[in-house]
Amino acid sequence: MVVIIGAGVTKFDEHWELSFRELILEAALKAIESSGLHGEKIEAIYGGCMASGRFIGQEHIGALIADQLGLNPIPSTRVEAACASGGVALRTAYLSIKSGAHDIVAVGGVEKMTELSTEGVSFALGGAGDQEIELFHGATFPSLYALLARAHMQDFGTTEEQMAAVAVKNHANAIFNPNAQFHRQIAIEDVMGSGYVAEPIKVLDCSPITDGAAALILCSNEKAEELGLKGVEIIASEQASDSLAITGRKSLTELKATRMAAQRAYQKTGLSPKDIDFAEVHDCFTIAEILAIEDLGFFEKGKGGIATEKGETSLKGKIPINPSGGLKGKGHPVGATGVAQAAEAYYQLMELAGERQVKKAKTCLTHNVGGSGATAIVTIYRRFKG
Amino acid sequence: MVVIIGAGVTKFDEHWELSFRELILEAALKAIESSGLHGEKIEAIYGGCMASGRFIGQEHIGALIADQLGLNPIPSTRVEAACASGGVALRTAYLSIKSGAHDIVAVGGVEKMTELSTEGVSFALGGAGDQEIELFHGATFPSLYALLARAHMQDFGTTEEQMAAVAVKNHANAIFNPNAQFHRQIAIEDVMGSGYVAEPIKVLDCSPITDGAAALILCSNEKAEELGLKGVEIIASEQASDSLAITGRKSLTELKATRMAAQRAYQKTGLSPKDIDFAEVHDCFTIAEILAIEDLGFFEKGKGGIATEKGETSLKGKIPINPSGGLKGKGHPVGATGVAQAAEAYYQLMELAGERQVKKAKTCLTHNVGGSGATAIVTIYRRFKG
Repeated sequence: MVVIIGAGVTKFDEHWELSFRELILEAALKAIESSGLHGEKIEAIYGGCMASGRFIGQEHIGALIADQLGLNPIPSTRVEAACASGGVALRTAYLSIKSGAHDIVAVGGVEKMTELSTEGVSFALGGAGDQEIELFHGATFPSLYALLARAHMQDFGTTEEQMAAVAVKNHANAIFNPNAQFHRQIAIEDVMGSGYVAEPIKVLDCSPITDGAAALILCSNEKAEELGLKGVEIIASEQASDSLAITGRKSLTELKATRMAAQRAYQKTGLSPKDIDFAEVHDCFTIAEILAIEDLGFFEKGKGGIATEKGETSLKGKIPINPSGGLKGKGHPVGATGVAQAAEAYYQLMELAGERQVKKAKTCLTHNVGGSGATAIVTIYRRFKG
Repeated sequence: MVVIIGAGVTKFDEHWELSFRELILEAALKAIESSGLHGEKIEAIYGGCMASGRFIGQEHIGALIADQLGLNPIPSTRVEAACASGGVALRTAYLSIKSGAHDIVAVGGVEKMTELSTEGVSFALGGAGDQEIELFHGATFPSLYALLARAHMQDFGTTEEQMAAVAVKNHANAIFNPNAQFHRQIAIEDVMGSGYVAEPIKVLDCSPITDGAAALILCSNEKAEELGLKGVEIIASEQASDSLAITGRKSLTELKATRMAAQRAYQKTGLSPKDIDFAEVHDCFTIAEILAIEDLGFFEKGKGGIATEKGETSLKGKIPINPSGGLKGKGHPVGATGVAQAAEAYYQLMELAGERQVKKAKTCLTHNVGGSGATAIVTIYRRFKG
């Protein structure tokens, strides 16, 4: 097994004053410091990044990270899975430790999105969907999720107000997260009054464009015990794929990849949704959180909107969802998101989460999605009594 | 340990008639067919691709591959390490099997480069170097390797004719490779008479712009024995990093990442350069092959040019280098190259290489480089007596 022994996250924001490299450095140094280990102990790096080629004209991000951290000549690998890049980097690092190749591995996620115009960002993010079948014909990401929202409204009576309740909750949680992009309480009326981007999705149903980085230090259980380190154990990390274009799917009211990854993660751990104390889920749009909490088994299919409206997913609800503020409140630097979710799992299970602390949290699930659901990754964590 | 049980490569060419997806499908089907297994047996996919975002406006390549092959919902992950993307994808897949997570894994590499103008390709490939320190100031890849060539000429007396001898040999080998981009014998005078791209590097010192894909099926030793499969065993796969910009390096006459990766691969296998029967090395420019055969220990530092001129690296020489034709003769679809090198290892060690067969080859080394040497990956193979 594998233990997270340190985590670091930059402030998620529009960082006009910080470069791609500086974001990486800040997150990595925080993670290394929190692990209590010297950086020289790190044996390999896995970095998640979606579209640096289009955002800043730079590929070969693995080598860049090792270089920037002064960690040459250790192997350093970039993983890309659209907005699930960070989660997949984490799983890849986890498997590299399980393979016996490495004992101590750094995982990073980074994206610098604000160098392009909003139009440029939309086009770059579109690369997460199907260029030939969707984007070429004018589909953007809000419009794809709008189709999922419409189907959910039609089949289950989900309302725009219920979707708005996701945004309101996540903004409320983000106020307690010093690294969140937004520290501003919003009300249902604010969301309902914000303009349509792609009906029924409004501006305040969308996660923002963000610069940011997150990092983790992973360690094999054996090494963590040898060094007397505490941390958070990864007890399952499961990944699944689905059709890249949403036209290839039988149902628009569930993300099958989420269901498959969750099913395997529950199987592997012997846990059920009831055993999870809180979850960080992929709320790139408010409808995405409703889909997620249903597909992960926390609520019956079709009941996610009502549950959110009733407060069952709030910080003190039945199952707190996105205590960090989620992608909506915390921000969504796409390649960093999956790693930041794992960092939140670490902070919460180590009881370092301050005012957003979920009481008595022992088991956590994170859920990271690429594109409109073509990749999903579900990871389950518990406190490691090192 | 891990065994390659099947391999497939498309023709490397300017494929105006084939899309990115079609290239993937062709290589994958060939690999699956050569393994003798049904595609349903594949449990995970790792795909190497450098810059699809800039070449064809498409990211999220892992999901695209699984989708195109009809292999949803298995996990499918894209790995990017510039021109070493394929080699790093192979190592990542290899570690995923060693981790126990999977028994049978497909590895792919793909690039569709000819959709852009030559200028667009140069700029996209530039993302393999350091955007801020090198590209922004006008450096292109030929100019970076020209600096390495100049340093080698100055320190060791390497000549332009010796570099030309690399191109002549690799074109000669490519004639026997039906999938090679070039089937045309060239002479030293042709190379010497071709125009300078970045002095001393001339047009015929450069690998071409290529569309293509390559795929492998990997299997755990245990599973291969259980199924009675033959193949080629990966006995080491080692990766190292170096400064992204060449300004950060102490020496311009060696690629330190190559040396480090090779050293570890030799240590891990107990082999020395003398035990290697032939090698596929990263000859993106002719000087790169000279550096490689020195840094891998086949020839003393400074003697690579002379050795090539004397024919020691030809198909019937002391140690055949790039029997496939190498990047220069076979073509260099950047994300596919590392996987195609491993495919050549498979064909040769299985004695399927036809007229370019290296006689009595039992042990092979492949060497894949990202950028101007910021990533290097060295893999060693031997025949698996399944």
